[in-house]
Amino acid sequence: MADQKKMVEDITSMDEDFAKWYTDICRKAELIEYTSVKGCMVIRPYGYAIWENIQKILDGKFKELGHENVCMPMFIPESLLQKEKDHVEGFAPEVAWVTHGGNDPLEERLCVRPTSETLFCEHYANIIHSHRDLPKLYNQWVSVVRWEKTTRPFLRSREFLWQEGHTIHATAEEAIAETEQMLNVYADFCEQELAMPVVRGQKTESDKFAGAVSTYAIEALMHDGKALQAGTSHYFGDGFAKAFGIQYQSKENKLEYPHQTSWGMTTRLIGAIIMTHGDDNGLVLPPAVAPIQVVIIPVAQHKEGVLEKANELKALLSKNFRVKLDDSDNSPGWKYSEYEMKGVPVRLEIGPRDIEAGQCVLVTRHNREKAVVSLDNLEAEIENKLKEVHDGLWQKAYENRERRTYKCTSMDEIKAAISENGDGFVKAMWCGDEACEDKVKEETGVGSRCIPFDQENISDTCVCCGKPAKHMVMWGNAY
Amino acid sequence: MADQKKMVEDITSMDEDFAKWYTDICRKAELIEYTSVKGCMVIRPYGYAIWENIQKILDGKFKELGHENVCMPMFIPESLLQKEKDHVEGFAPEVAWVTHGGNDPLEERLCVRPTSETLFCEHYANIIHSHRDLPKLYNQWVSVVRWEKTTRPFLRSREFLWQEGHTIHATAEEAIAETEQMLNVYADFCEQELAMPVVRGQKTESDKFAGAVSTYAIEALMHDGKALQAGTSHYFGDGFAKAFGIQYQSKENKLEYPHQTSWGMTTRLIGAIIMTHGDDNGLVLPPAVAPIQVVIIPVAQHKEGVLEKANELKALLSKNFRVKLDDSDNSPGWKYSEYEMKGVPVRLEIGPRDIEAGQCVLVTRHNREKAVVSLDNLEAEIENKLKEVHDGLWQKAYENRERRTYKCTSMDEIKAAISENGDGFVKAMWCGDEACEDKVKEETGVGSRCIPFDQENISDTCVCCGKPAKHMVMWGNAY
Repeated sequence: MADQKKMVEDITSMDEDFAKWYTDICRKAELIEYTSVKGCMVIRPYGYAIWENIQKILDGKFKELGHENVCMPMFIPESLLQKEKDHVEGFAPEVAWVTHGGNDPLEERLCVRPTSETLFCEHYANIIHSHRDLPKLYNQWVSVVRWEKTTRPFLRSREFLWQEGHTIHATAEEAIAETEQMLNVYADFCEQELAMPVVRGQKTESDKFAGAVSTYAIEALMHDGKALQAGTSHYFGDGFAKAFGIQYQSKENKLEYPHQTSWGMTTRLIGAIIMTHGDDNGLVLPPAVAPIQVVIIPVAQHKEGVLEKANELKALLSKNFRVKLDDSDNSPGWKYSEYEMKGVPVRLEIGPRDIEAGQCVLVTRHNREKAVVSLDNLEAEIENKLKEVHDGLWQKAYENRERRTYKCTSMDEIKAAISENGDGFVKAMWCGDEACEDKVKEETGVGSRCIPFDQENISDTCVCCGKPAKHMVMWGNAY
Repeated sequence: MADQKKMVEDITSMDEDFAKWYTDICRKAELIEYTSVKGCMVIRPYGYAIWENIQKILDGKFKELGHENVCMPMFIPESLLQKEKDHVEGFAPEVAWVTHGGNDPLEERLCVRPTSETLFCEHYANIIHSHRDLPKLYNQWVSVVRWEKTTRPFLRSREFLWQEGHTIHATAEEAIAETEQMLNVYADFCEQELAMPVVRGQKTESDKFAGAVSTYAIEALMHDGKALQAGTSHYFGDGFAKAFGIQYQSKENKLEYPHQTSWGMTTRLIGAIIMTHGDDNGLVLPPAVAPIQVVIIPVAQHKEGVLEKANELKALLSKNFRVKLDDSDNSPGWKYSEYEMKGVPVRLEIGPRDIEAGQCVLVTRHNREKAVVSLDNLEAEIENKLKEVHDGLWQKAYENRERRTYKCTSMDEIKAAISENGDGFVKAMWCGDEACEDKVKEETGVGSRCIPFDQENISDTCVCCGKPAKHMVMWGNAY
């Protein structure tokens, strides 16, 4: 029992040390384990099952919208990476280089893909000739490598899992529509499946993807008031097509350059789930991606009929939900703590007296509220409760964000808002000048997160220089 | 139309040049495209969709048997790879080495995983302490890299996709049972889903996996008579546990070494499908993994009612099958060739006269037989036809293998059988001595594929030295 207890004791309180609370959850909920390579982690079964659920929902949505999965190599020759000037400048400083195959030095070194635009472009140049070959709506689920200096599980790791969509279209209009569509797919996924409110917007020039004409992003606010970029979608124009010589014959028999996009979501989302919904008892999972939606804990399980009934409930509920019955010889109290740590949305407790009364105890993880529910109508009851958990998570996250969103009209107001209330989203106007963007960051500590699509007029002038404002920017400190 | 025609013309005949026929199919059925990195290919949507279907079936089976998916890093530090002596000797000569992160040389170079035993062992040493922590039944779906000199799409590529199961058990008995169980899962998958007969057996000492106590394999025979290893399952004993210091406290409070297994199947299977079932018209896909099971080709589609009816059939059939309706402006004849090239098991042709008669033409890919079927009972008819395709593929592959299996009692008989009938499986007895194994290979060209679990007594003496035989070995030339 000593061994078992370790798991549910001493998790750091989130108010005391949020960073430590975060890594405690990553390890104690058995999401990850460290390895001997810095920044590379083992994603354990429980963590990976969350990712599989994320994948399944997103992949279904991508396919519904006509996308097809492919698989590109993991290696990019140095000369290929260098073909698009901005792109290589953005990525070369942080790639891992393969220099030897077995005992032989390679003629040209290869980087492990940090992202795959160059590989897709090389392929498109081979397969696209005519307007009939367009569009191509491709996606792949792979891991990528970026040699980060500082690393944290899920949030910033040297290797991470993601999907990268890469599409190519006859016209700019189509490509822009795709870029917007996919940002909305991401936003809807975060809000409807992960119960995580996001702000949709455009990155400023200084913050856009290396090689993009424009980058759209969704930004979420974590429990501690720091922002987290949860997904991005890029419009490339025909810049990559020109660099890679991709051309197609139009209906009018002219050679044209096609227009491209890319978009991605990563295992970072698991970090975002932890920091949006977690509490001092551990992880709290949105029902849509929870590996276990309902855990059944038998009480006094040695007594006649208890395990039989628990198994019967499991069989019944497994038709529509992801269910686990824990009939191990740990105590019920220990099990309660364990599945709270693991963030299971709904717990059912069933003992001899419950069975006699034709009921069980149902506890929802997010608010730890107990209800006594009849066994007669259990499936519908659980359906409702899972919805209640989702809505409760959304509400709490939304309120946190609203409470931590500050409208500011001067640099001093920004500083005051953050020093009084802690990190959060700052809504403030901007003239569009990069010098002002830099100065806001330097003086107040908050960088521009995005220019939200939903603009508000906080004031008429730039929060920094006082000249006429062009945009409302969402500023913040970010993961 | 010139562009389109290219696809269905001039595929090399398989009897003329089997190797060229193979690569023609890989490219003309749009399974792969080459990249600028030798041995690394793009798996295109149609090829990747086959892999997704393979994954879905296997992953479901693994989970049903209690396995959980995880994800290990792609990098292995050199010192970790070196911990198990036989293992490093087997793999070090063919790994890709990462030496730099960004502009900085790494303190220790990292190899890109060629297989992940060492990573799993490092992890097990961290998480396994007590008998309560056993067994762990883990699997991962990733790509691995082996720096091969000669490469061919799917069959031998420098990067390939696979699943690798890694399990760890309290006892040798449990681990051996797992090794056998997974080999049978693989064999059943090949036979029941891919319509590919396999021989189940054990590898000889000289041919087993680097670090294994014993390696089990399934061997299939390709159309040209060469063998292909379609899956392997390894029993490691406690060798890795000892090398990595993995120990657990038993129920009796003693420190014990656990026993391990690993098992894998790869994108090679797609190569095996091509070479088992393909013909001079292109790919022929087993229905269980075909991305499109039924293609509907409207005839005279500009005539009133044809496309409506075709769409109606598509909607009906999509409930139970993977269906594509091709209403592009290519001619029906061109479409027939295209979907034959792509190996779609069943084709439906429907034109105005068919509609009037309440029927359609159904063509099965493997034998190109036409049948006129009533629209009234179409779903059941297609269900039957897909089964017929599967059985037909199996029968043809089985007959090919039986025709090409030679029972030999002397070296001369082996040479004669192969020179008269071409490559195939040779059944011949062996004394168990590695020198004889080498000599058979040297003199006749066929190496030992496996010692089949189903033993036959071909003769009492070793085919090479004439001493008493221990095993019947299946010999052959292999991919």
